[in-house]
Amino acid sequence: MKFTITRNTFIKALNDVSRAISTKTTIPILTGLRLVLTESALVLTGSDADISIEVRIDANSETNDLQIESTGSIVLPARIFTEVVKRLPDARMTLDVQENFQTVLTSGSAEFTINGLDANNYPRLPEIGADQAMTVPADVLQQLINQTVIAVSNQESRPILTGVHLTIGNGQLVAVATDSHRLAQRTLELAAAADADYDVIIPGKSLAELSHTLSPDVDNVEIRFTDNQVLFIAGDLSFYSRLLEGNYPDTTRLIPTSSTTTIRFDAPALLAAIQRASLMSHQSTNNVVRLSLDTAAQTATIFGNSPDVGNVEEALQFNDLTGDNLDISFNPDYMKDALQSLGQTEVEVAFTAPLRPFTLVPSADQAHFIQLITPVRTF
Amino acid sequence: MKFTITRNTFIKALNDVSRAISTKTTIPILTGLRLVLTESALVLTGSDADISIEVRIDANSETNDLQIESTGSIVLPARIFTEVVKRLPDARMTLDVQENFQTVLTSGSAEFTINGLDANNYPRLPEIGADQAMTVPADVLQQLINQTVIAVSNQESRPILTGVHLTIGNGQLVAVATDSHRLAQRTLELAAAADADYDVIIPGKSLAELSHTLSPDVDNVEIRFTDNQVLFIAGDLSFYSRLLEGNYPDTTRLIPTSSTTTIRFDAPALLAAIQRASLMSHQSTNNVVRLSLDTAAQTATIFGNSPDVGNVEEALQFNDLTGDNLDISFNPDYMKDALQSLGQTEVEVAFTAPLRPFTLVPSADQAHFIQLITPVRTF
Repeated sequence: MKFTITRNTFIKALNDVSRAISTKTTIPILTGLRLVLTESALVLTGSDADISIEVRIDANSETNDLQIESTGSIVLPARIFTEVVKRLPDARMTLDVQENFQTVLTSGSAEFTINGLDANNYPRLPEIGADQAMTVPADVLQQLINQTVIAVSNQESRPILTGVHLTIGNGQLVAVATDSHRLAQRTLELAAAADADYDVIIPGKSLAELSHTLSPDVDNVEIRFTDNQVLFIAGDLSFYSRLLEGNYPDTTRLIPTSSTTTIRFDAPALLAAIQRASLMSHQSTNNVVRLSLDTAAQTATIFGNSPDVGNVEEALQFNDLTGDNLDISFNPDYMKDALQSLGQTEVEVAFTAPLRPFTLVPSADQAHFIQLITPVRTF
Repeated sequence: MKFTITRNTFIKALNDVSRAISTKTTIPILTGLRLVLTESALVLTGSDADISIEVRIDANSETNDLQIESTGSIVLPARIFTEVVKRLPDARMTLDVQENFQTVLTSGSAEFTINGLDANNYPRLPEIGADQAMTVPADVLQQLINQTVIAVSNQESRPILTGVHLTIGNGQLVAVATDSHRLAQRTLELAAAADADYDVIIPGKSLAELSHTLSPDVDNVEIRFTDNQVLFIAGDLSFYSRLLEGNYPDTTRLIPTSSTTTIRFDAPALLAAIQRASLMSHQSTNNVVRLSLDTAAQTATIFGNSPDVGNVEEALQFNDLTGDNLDISFNPDYMKDALQSLGQTEVEVAFTAPLRPFTLVPSADQAHFIQLITPVRTF
């Protein structure tokens, strides 16, 4: 195997694939990066067993400027190889696999020899056909991920809750995540989902990584499913993740259908006030802020308190406070995550009782996005 | 004590003073920030006992826009107070010290109450008069620091070597640092040093911190000495450091006066090659690279090797290689530090023998700057 390539092209692919490579893996060969060169393409693969990323550098693309002398494959130590490639002196580099998997990398007057491994020992990626596939706009997918993964549990005690539950069918895609303290649900109307019927749980970590990996250049992402794997194809990049096995709890009954108090805020302004209040609550053993709504006086006030450090009180700007007076306490970090995922919008917050979950929805689109937060009992 | 101030002015001063405040101090009040307000100025002080930084916000300066209602002083928990000030909603903030050192901070509709401490319990800073003082251009001082602190020892076994040795007199300032493996010496011709006679050792950590603190807006730094303290005054900022006590070893005899092989490199190009070679040496237990100079063949080659990972060999570009052939091994990190401190220049490297220290000097100014590196025995 021997090829010459423009270093920047190679570094870009290397950066993408490296996202899947962990130094903490228990399978030594997975600390390596696999290179497979055929007449048509150079394929880079990285994997941590849960996630695998493959990037294809097309041999026929002029911009890639890939010159093939001989095909073959090799596994190279990913971290050090990446550092070497990034520090090479010239704009082009030549990689030549010699005897005993010794790989010679030349660029300008620098010549590195790196000990490689037999690519035949690298685990095989699953083959996932296109028979169960659908296409989603990349930006929509990215937004859906960012709005739901925040509510995924990071506790392995209930592994199923570390995933995002996707139900696809009847022209809709519904994504739900909950760590049992809060819940995020996002619904998409999707023509591609008209005839589909999928019910899968994708690890939150995989989706977060996918969201970071998706390039803004890519318009559409093809999603393929098997019984235990999902594959996202975005341009030259293929992103594989295992699925979580088990039954996701029924979350539909958790979302309240009525409310006794509602109020609307500018989401970024509310976020800033919550962040200020949390400066004090973070200094306290119970990380809780209190929101007090007075519908007669038309005031909304937030309180944060730390017995050691001090306290904060802030009158909030709002629109349309209606219903019963309310005093409610909650974890400000859940509120921050929810508001950050909403972005630049007006948010409607609806309460039923001081100890019942409350909801946040964007005022402009109440049907497709909901965040649910369970309050904290402070008495 | 009560005042109102433009928040950005206050944050700038807070950032400077915070550099001296450590959360790891054994003296609890030093985790605090002291504010002292008189009719003429608001003075902020931070200290970790070794270093103290004081910033003066002039009450009469229009840009500071400081409105004083009542004078006084307070000590506030530095970390949380800084976070709070940075997150306040309005461009102005009012600080009001009430009973029991409770400090109320208001900005927009947010009101924080923070538990303060009695400023009378804050340690006093030394009073350092102007009778032993000299002035140095700020950029020259900063360069001198950056070129010498790299060679300071970070081992407390010989505390004196953790400092930079400054000798000032006869119109010269000589700064020397060595960790016994390498040495950096910088000489300044200084009119202000004509009648001076100082011999002090300043902790390297203090100087590194001073260098980071110096604002590009400040042209000159006044330096004042006492027996055990040094004070740098840069505009509104006063930087105090303790001095190290003891006798610094005589370093003049360490610098070789002759050489058997000399070679000149473009410093940034050599730095890049050393960095590449160190990628391999860093994977090895003995972090050593080898330089091979052949005066007959007119070649200079650098080698890095790791038994596990691989090796690298690079032919170097150079000017004027003269003298004996040489094979020498050294710690590439020392070389990197030295070359980085030289910046964009041509460097002359002079060797006497494979096991004798070699020197790096800028070709253009060989008298005022020298870096000395001790090679490593590899056989």
